[in-house]
Amino acid sequence: MKERTVYINGKFVPESEAKISIFDAGFCTGEGITEVTRTFKHKPFKLDEHIKRLYRSLKMTGIDPGMKTEEMTRLTLEVLKRNLPLIEEDDDCCIVHNITAGERGHPYFGGGAGSTTVVIYCAPVGFRWYARQYETGIHLVTPSNRMYPPQCLDPKIKHRSRMYARIAELQAKLVDPEARALLLDLEGNISEGTGFNLFIVTDGVLRTPTTRNILAGISRATVLELAEKMGIPAVEEDLQPYDVSNADEAFYTSTSPCVLPVTKFNGAPIGDGVPGPITKRLLKAWSDLVGVDIVKQALDHMDDPQ
Amino acid sequence: MKERTVYINGKFVPESEAKISIFDAGFCTGEGITEVTRTFKHKPFKLDEHIKRLYRSLKMTGIDPGMKTEEMTRLTLEVLKRNLPLIEEDDDCCIVHNITAGERGHPYFGGGAGSTTVVIYCAPVGFRWYARQYETGIHLVTPSNRMYPPQCLDPKIKHRSRMYARIAELQAKLVDPEARALLLDLEGNISEGTGFNLFIVTDGVLRTPTTRNILAGISRATVLELAEKMGIPAVEEDLQPYDVSNADEAFYTSTSPCVLPVTKFNGAPIGDGVPGPITKRLLKAWSDLVGVDIVKQALDHMDDPQ
Amino acid sequence: MKERTVYINGKFVPESEAKISIFDAGFCTGEGITEVTRTFKHKPFKLDEHIKRLYRSLKMTGIDPGMKTEEMTRLTLEVLKRNLPLIEEDDDCCIVHNITAGERGHPYFGGGAGSTTVVIYCAPVGFRWYARQYETGIHLVTPSNRMYPPQCLDPKIKHRSRMYARIAELQAKLVDPEARALLLDLEGNISEGTGFNLFIVTDGVLRTPTTRNILAGISRATVLELAEKMGIPAVEEDLQPYDVSNADEAFYTSTSPCVLPVTKFNGAPIGDGVPGPITKRLLKAWSDLVGVDIVKQALDHMDDPQ
Amino acid sequence: MKERTVYINGKFVPESEAKISIFDAGFCTGEGITEVTRTFKHKPFKLDEHIKRLYRSLKMTGIDPGMKTEEMTRLTLEVLKRNLPLIEEDDDCCIVHNITAGERGHPYFGGGAGSTTVVIYCAPVGFRWYARQYETGIHLVTPSNRMYPPQCLDPKIKHRSRMYARIAELQAKLVDPEARALLLDLEGNISEGTGFNLFIVTDGVLRTPTTRNILAGISRATVLELAEKMGIPAVEEDLQPYDVSNADEAFYTSTSPCVLPVTKFNGAPIGDGVPGPITKRLLKAWSDLVGVDIVKQALDHMDDPQ
Amino acid sequence: MKERTVYINGKFVPESEAKISIFDAGFCTGEGITEVTRTFKHKPFKLDEHIKRLYRSLKMTGIDPGMKTEEMTRLTLEVLKRNLPLIEEDDDCCIVHNITAGERGHPYFGGGAGSTTVVIYCAPVGFRWYARQYETGIHLVTPSNRMYPPQCLDPKIKHRSRMYARIAELQAKLVDPEARALLLDLEGNISEGTGFNLFIVTDGVLRTPTTRNILAGISRATVLELAEKMGIPAVEEDLQPYDVSNADEAFYTSTSPCVLPVTKFNGAPIGDGVPGPITKRLLKAWSDLVGVDIVKQALDHMDDPQ
Amino acid sequence: MKERTVYINGKFVPESEAKISIFDAGFCTGEGITEVTRTFKHKPFKLDEHIKRLYRSLKMTGIDPGMKTEEMTRLTLEVLKRNLPLIEEDDDCCIVHNITAGERGHPYFGGGAGSTTVVIYCAPVGFRWYARQYETGIHLVTPSNRMYPPQCLDPKIKHRSRMYARIAELQAKLVDPEARALLLDLEGNISEGTGFNLFIVTDGVLRTPTTRNILAGISRATVLELAEKMGIPAVEEDLQPYDVSNADEAFYTSTSPCVLPVTKFNGAPIGDGVPGPITKRLLKAWSDLVGVDIVKQALDHMDDPQ
Repeated sequence: MKERTVYINGKFVPESEAKISIFDAGFCTGEGITEVTRTFKHKPFKLDEHIKRLYRSLKMTGIDPGMKTEEMTRLTLEVLKRNLPLIEEDDDCCIVHNITAGERGHPYFGGGAGSTTVVIYCAPVGFRWYARQYETGIHLVTPSNRMYPPQCLDPKIKHRSRMYARIAELQAKLVDPEARALLLDLEGNISEGTGFNLFIVTDGVLRTPTTRNILAGISRATVLELAEKMGIPAVEEDLQPYDVSNADEAFYTSTSPCVLPVTKFNGAPIGDGVPGPITKRLLKAWSDLVGVDIVKQALDHMDDPQ
Repeated sequence: MKERTVYINGKFVPESEAKISIFDAGFCTGEGITEVTRTFKHKPFKLDEHIKRLYRSLKMTGIDPGMKTEEMTRLTLEVLKRNLPLIEEDDDCCIVHNITAGERGHPYFGGGAGSTTVVIYCAPVGFRWYARQYETGIHLVTPSNRMYPPQCLDPKIKHRSRMYARIAELQAKLVDPEARALLLDLEGNISEGTGFNLFIVTDGVLRTPTTRNILAGISRATVLELAEKMGIPAVEEDLQPYDVSNADEAFYTSTSPCVLPVTKFNGAPIGDGVPGPITKRLLKAWSDLVGVDIVKQALDHMDDPQ
Repeated sequence: MKERTVYINGKFVPESEAKISIFDAGFCTGEGITEVTRTFKHKPFKLDEHIKRLYRSLKMTGIDPGMKTEEMTRLTLEVLKRNLPLIEEDDDCCIVHNITAGERGHPYFGGGAGSTTVVIYCAPVGFRWYARQYETGIHLVTPSNRMYPPQCLDPKIKHRSRMYARIAELQAKLVDPEARALLLDLEGNISEGTGFNLFIVTDGVLRTPTTRNILAGISRATVLELAEKMGIPAVEEDLQPYDVSNADEAFYTSTSPCVLPVTKFNGAPIGDGVPGPITKRLLKAWSDLVGVDIVKQALDHMDDPQ
Repeated sequence: MKERTVYINGKFVPESEAKISIFDAGFCTGEGITEVTRTFKHKPFKLDEHIKRLYRSLKMTGIDPGMKTEEMTRLTLEVLKRNLPLIEEDDDCCIVHNITAGERGHPYFGGGAGSTTVVIYCAPVGFRWYARQYETGIHLVTPSNRMYPPQCLDPKIKHRSRMYARIAELQAKLVDPEARALLLDLEGNISEGTGFNLFIVTDGVLRTPTTRNILAGISRATVLELAEKMGIPAVEEDLQPYDVSNADEAFYTSTSPCVLPVTKFNGAPIGDGVPGPITKRLLKAWSDLVGVDIVKQALDHMDDPQ
Repeated sequence: MKERTVYINGKFVPESEAKISIFDAGFCTGEGITEVTRTFKHKPFKLDEHIKRLYRSLKMTGIDPGMKTEEMTRLTLEVLKRNLPLIEEDDDCCIVHNITAGERGHPYFGGGAGSTTVVIYCAPVGFRWYARQYETGIHLVTPSNRMYPPQCLDPKIKHRSRMYARIAELQAKLVDPEARALLLDLEGNISEGTGFNLFIVTDGVLRTPTTRNILAGISRATVLELAEKMGIPAVEEDLQPYDVSNADEAFYTSTSPCVLPVTKFNGAPIGDGVPGPITKRLLKAWSDLVGVDIVKQALDHMDDPQ
Repeated sequence: MKERTVYINGKFVPESEAKISIFDAGFCTGEGITEVTRTFKHKPFKLDEHIKRLYRSLKMTGIDPGMKTEEMTRLTLEVLKRNLPLIEEDDDCCIVHNITAGERGHPYFGGGAGSTTVVIYCAPVGFRWYARQYETGIHLVTPSNRMYPPQCLDPKIKHRSRMYARIAELQAKLVDPEARALLLDLEGNISEGTGFNLFIVTDGVLRTPTTRNILAGISRATVLELAEKMGIPAVEEDLQPYDVSNADEAFYTSTSPCVLPVTKFNGAPIGDGVPGPITKRLLKAWSDLVGVDIVKQALDHMDDPQ
């Protein structure tokens, strides 16, 4: 089988040769910025929004990618084009950007990094990790550690310093190895999960935290747009565990699964404990939007080798 | 010139071949643990304490290094031994441990990492970055972002998710390109710098923050031990910028420079604006302890190629 | 078998007739103050301290018990005396004070309670609940909810408004049905458990949170006194989960078990995962102090009917 | 005079025999959930909403009432029916639910409660406590203690652990024996009173705190519904003492009085110091909705024996 | 040149004779309340709103001005009238109210102030300080100190205890002597500057912090009114530095300059680094509203002696 | 009677002519720094410490007094010397420093103050305000507003921006016109009063808050020094209202009264409700230190005209 192609710092290399230095700031200090864009029918979904958010993250962290958004977009599409021959017709992929502060003369002094490291690659969609949860729903658990607040590092920056998330996942998995962590903020409000945004449905209204201290998810925005078109009222507001526990239904949004039902929270079922009707309608609407049956595709590919 | 040797996952390789996968969790999500141990006269200083802290960090983050401390110590000494031929007699080096959650099947699902990545290598001491500051002292600036609190991720864990520190350094360098950032905690107390612990001297008393929300620095502990031997009273307590601004003298501790004078704070001189007498006595005592004139060695090597 | 006797509002009644009105403020709004004093060899342990703390709690909550400490002590001893015939020679009991704001004309207006309700009774020591944990140690888990801060209600008040503790226990038991909850405070420091104070041992030093935002446990004070006599250094300071996780040993203090080993924290063993030597020495010293082998007594009585 | 009937755990008993054990968790640890539903013309007002909120509180606290909402509703109506003969035609009553974690084997170990205690009873409306304040308005005072935050225990749970409220009332009554306490949250925003929600009117707009950290009062919701029908604009937002102090008018909502004017705040009059026009219009609209002149009924019955 | 006239405590005096006692509470303890009202074409702009806010501040601080709003308005217009002869036709002025707790018998005991001090005067508009920034825009910097929260002193009170602002300005000017400070609140949200409110524009939407913890600026309200008329959508919400940094344009509002472009934030350009189109449209609309070309007037008068 | 002499900006003027401009930053924005030094037997007490603290405050606020500490001391003694003829032999005085950022070109732009304003004057000791409280003790009340935290403005700076203290006093006086306010910090710990530091005595131990977020009072330091000499153990730690309420005795320290008994707290007596024995011993020791019977002097002069 032919190998995937990775773009690193101006070169296209086979994935097995895509290595970075142990002195790279992305490895040494987590000083990296990322985006993950999914394709539907081999077309990147909302690539412009992802590139725009990428540059916002870069600006806030003072990392200069060395090119304008147009060139970044062009390279992204080039990486996709080179990898498409490896992707089956009914399959799709994720395009990952990973941009770091680069290799340092000495990793422990701020004396300035060398040139920025830019990596762009295609990865299989992780269907295997979540496909069956379209039917069963996932279990979310609130760990005892808290989401870091914007005054330390703004969660609107999509960065790669995620050790806090590891701690959170470890705690959630003590409760249930299949569970994922939903972090509270320092005031005890729901913030975000380890890579996803939460939505709940109460009395027919979609409710989700504001972007004050979470990533402004592009999938999250897509759900809000779909809801508006479908006439489903939606509010952005502070939510607490009480609201999740007593919701009629819940789901999370994330680039790969788009919308994934949440059916259990801290050990107790949400509503009837099965994926809810509004969750399903949103998945249907998104599928229509992109011309791919999102759930079916995931189930069809969940056993693909990756 | 012969190349340095790096230990990666069971192999000793030349530094130029020491690369890690772009799918390594250390690169993808900053899920890495580190230690930096300095040598004096080619002997590692307090290696046991560094190994012990390494394992504390690993335990809290659920990363299994796949070996006990004895084996880790043995490997560390082996790395040093293989690199010593490259280090001149009056020079020294830093031994760096970098242990990550390893390569993942898919970077965006917590489905579990593969085997842990263990990297051990020797790096030159970064004399060039700080040697002249033994004489002039350094300028510290409090940025407007805050140190993350222990309930998000405990700073006593020496991890590699340091994007917050990049933001802090960017702000400090707006004031003075030579300055470094000293972060406040969420309550406005002095926490730690971007890689160092702060000490001040007020009326003959050494004062430094408690380890409640900072790294429990091994250099910091060394200063407290030296002070006790020298009869210098020392207290660990909450400090505020007022205390730093009005201190008689100040310095920071860090593995490479040991004790580095701080002579300016937020644009104003501390005390007389020159390294203070207790700072100098501590440097002298430490030099005596390890049999190396710490300042002289740094000045002698500050122009070495690295 | 003869029945135990309970003191309620001036009368001594059989336990089965010891009922309170559904309009009592202790039942309607949790406005009650309590103490639990344990006997050793049928003598109440530190009764004066318990009575003193009882009156401190009453003062802060504006509940007037209608008698001075001397009379309260006299009544307490009378309750004990009346119940002693039911307690076997090698057994002991707990004496419980429960003092509430009394019966109200109308439970939802603050128009003032009627007379205070004073209940004093003897209860069997709950050996069955913890005896085997002297050997295995207990598992503590940090729930995601937080201890309430002193500015809402001071935890130094021993009151009966403990719904927060129920939530905490529910979460801890999701991880392990045998675990108990150890709550963090709003800053993420260790506060107290649901009815106990925590101690850890690090490098031979006893460490426990200050009484800033916990109950100032009388068992906690006893351990500090014993430690002083035994020459074990002890500090009261802010502790974080990192400290517990990396402690050499841990235990908790509580009136009934006195000192109970803690051997697991958030799913991972503390130290070697067995009760530690200092924990055992303290249990021995306490046993010597009161002339009862605390552990043996618990094991001997763990199958008693209660 | 015939006695009222109380439902306790499957039995209907005369009120004077309605007692609970001193070992009940509702008495020992405040682990109880409650609702108070008022009748108008002998019909319970919004009983469905009260039952729904009751079950939300029970879910969050893991208390199993042992029956579904339908059965709870049926029992509630049965309790009302049995008590109606004692209520005069122009009078009304409150139906109180009090559901606790039940009697424990041992009150100090979390080893699990026995069966849940379910109490349902009718109580006279407390007209005497507030009737005259429809004309004079009430004085609210902010005490120095703070409302507990949702991350300790969510105020949306209507529980019976209210010792904090006692402290707050004690402080308010130091200023004015007729005053009641309006608590601030930890950030200094207005939260709720000791049993009521606050509304203010500024330039014709109704303003009230969001349900982030208060009880989502059913009377509060009724006012928002009435305001919408009456074309009075209303916003839910964070409010501070400045806003209350400078409001044009203010009132609070609570089950018994529905809407009660607030005319004084921290010692100074609100607006002109008399009940405001929008307050009166809301009372009128609510009276129309339920077919009872709410103010007149209260004044007529304020001297009833209770 | 004739001198300006100042009103102090019932008298009109020449400005050079307008002195206050060194025992005045406004001088001794910063216990003063203020308003600054600007004229356009010699007419005070929104004087009623300023007087209303003045009385709100006085109420919250318990300072009795000794007169009703009508008399305060009359005196204000009288002060303006007496100073108008000194103001050129195309020039304008600021009318300043400064009302303090008055002269004390002894400045360090709260034994009560004497009579309130009321000062009203006219000052030249500070064109020189900002005129050129209509073209270049201003640089805002977030200092490391924080805005005081409403629970200490509500920023909606326009008082004269501004030492915190001095600290903030000192830090901002370390970065750029031309910069001004934009303070974050304790949670890290944007609050207000040292005398101004911030607005940003993102994707055509005006965004500004809520009045939860800032001064409810009258210029801020004017911009919101103009925006509504012009069909520019506007939201009041919590904003973070990320939002400012990535805004398309930004400006601040303040009584003298009305709307001043902000083009740089923490060292980096906002948008293209020049005043934005919506900023300019708002300046134009405001100019139309008051019949004065605000920018032109400022540029024409920036070299006037003051 | 001859008039007192005041030093203002290089001149000695009669007190009645000591006026400052209405444009002075001390008046306009509370940007002033102060010290109050008391004399005993006409000698200033701890003048060096006061001058030292004055310069610390000035440094943190960037106000340049235009002279070194030696000259400031010389001028201070000169002011005292010129006023001594007006002070009776058994009387004393306070020497007040008031140093502000000076007169501004325009009070609303930070464009920089002109020259600093330096005022030094003598004021009568305010015996009348507190003398009788040596016998009765004072009543302290915790208001609902909070002390500002160091991250907004460090309370160790003795500044003149005290509007928050006015709000606090207003609330305390609602409870009791004779009471003074004792502020809590944002976490609910005791901070300081409006011009004084608090001490309590518990079981023979002096306890007082740390200087983390209070003024480091010179009288407070004097008490700690006296206690050490007298063998009274003393600790600096976080205290809560519970500790004050349940203390055996309490007092506050402040420059004029030195040590003033506190006998009531939030409406309830502290201990027996009379000045305590340790309080009295400290007053005696201080009197011995300075050779003045502090209480007697106050009582003798409490009716002096001032």
